[in-house]
Amino acid sequence: MQKVYSSDNIATMDDLFRRAFVNSLTGFKSVCLIGSQTLNGKTNLAIFSQVFHIGANPALIGILVRPDKSPRHTLENILATKYFTINHIREEYYKNAHQTSARYSADVSEFEACGFTPEYSSAVNAPYVKEANVKIGLNLVEKNVLAINQTVLLIGEVKEVIVPDDCVLENGYIDIEKAGSITCSSLESYHVTKRLARLSYSKPDTFPTEL
Amino acid sequence: MQKVYSSDNIATMDDLFRRAFVNSLTGFKSVCLIGSQTLNGKTNLAIFSQVFHIGANPALIGILVRPDKSPRHTLENILATKYFTINHIREEYYKNAHQTSARYSADVSEFEACGFTPEYSSAVNAPYVKEANVKIGLNLVEKNVLAINQTVLLIGEVKEVIVPDDCVLENGYIDIEKAGSITCSSLESYHVTKRLARLSYSKPDTFPTEL
Repeated sequence: MQKVYSSDNIATMDDLFRRAFVNSLTGFKSVCLIGSQTLNGKTNLAIFSQVFHIGANPALIGILVRPDKSPRHTLENILATKYFTINHIREEYYKNAHQTSARYSADVSEFEACGFTPEYSSAVNAPYVKEANVKIGLNLVEKNVLAINQTVLLIGEVKEVIVPDDCVLENGYIDIEKAGSITCSSLESYHVTKRLARLSYSKPDTFPTEL
Repeated sequence: MQKVYSSDNIATMDDLFRRAFVNSLTGFKSVCLIGSQTLNGKTNLAIFSQVFHIGANPALIGILVRPDKSPRHTLENILATKYFTINHIREEYYKNAHQTSARYSADVSEFEACGFTPEYSSAVNAPYVKEANVKIGLNLVEKNVLAINQTVLLIGEVKEVIVPDDCVLENGYIDIEKAGSITCSSLESYHVTKRLARLSYSKPDTFPTEL
């Protein structure tokens, strides 16, 4: 049986119920750890599930930050240094990754508190997560504040990508399932994946074939 | 072994290689079918993987549209009617869903061409996908053009949600894995999921427990 929720039903939900409900609607998400640091080099690490492709050439990735929510240290750091890293989460570390969403005080680094190791590269002024298999270093190139609810959209240009060399296929596709990346739904559920198939580029007159 | 790609390496990649590579970086994605129609009621359906949570109260979801790419009918329709639907994709239909990305001419409806059935509700002026288990009806409330590459960010307010009634848990979380929703990576790979666990809200002094 299907259940229909109207906008009135949603508006009158309990706050925590609505938060879990609405966050479920956008399906499985790109769950990552975002590494950043202050101008003095104090590291910060935060789990994000609003991370998305903006363009391939130049290579651009967007993240959404609620200015009134716990990852505000991430926002302050990125605006100050202009750099951040995106690190995929592996199955072995999903509880540690979830724990980075706790409201630690500014003098605590989530790297140490949650069991991750910062790792540096000359390409970006921000820490990578040593335990991640897929790591992306980015330089901030655009900031937009969404008029409707003041959410901040930050866009980074990809300056460096670090991936297992046996996960990059001949057509450029990175096999993130083989690399061990996981996904999440809403704010509480973590999932591993199992590939159905890779499909060929779609054309109107033929049905897709498996690659 | 890890392989490091610099921004110069990425800039000099073959176009199709770079497209697959960069689209892989953002991890597993919210893959959905977006339903829309012209002012005359001609339906359109397009697969999207840039769909993300913007806020819970009011309930807001964003989608990204490249104005120069094939789903431009979607963009034109949403700007004209102010409505669209987001429909999760089930395993049984992933090849049909992928096929909606073919460049059909404006007189062809992807519903008919790809084997989906339009379904209507009085809440929104746009067609749902009958074959979907999770359906969201939205009203356009904001449009932003990203300065860096003219990608269009459309924000819709949720007007209606249709889900299987046994998939909404007591805390508001919608079990989209139970509902059969799938995920994708890059532009070619589709995946089902297997839950690791649902985790409790994080606090600094305790490690998360399984719900």
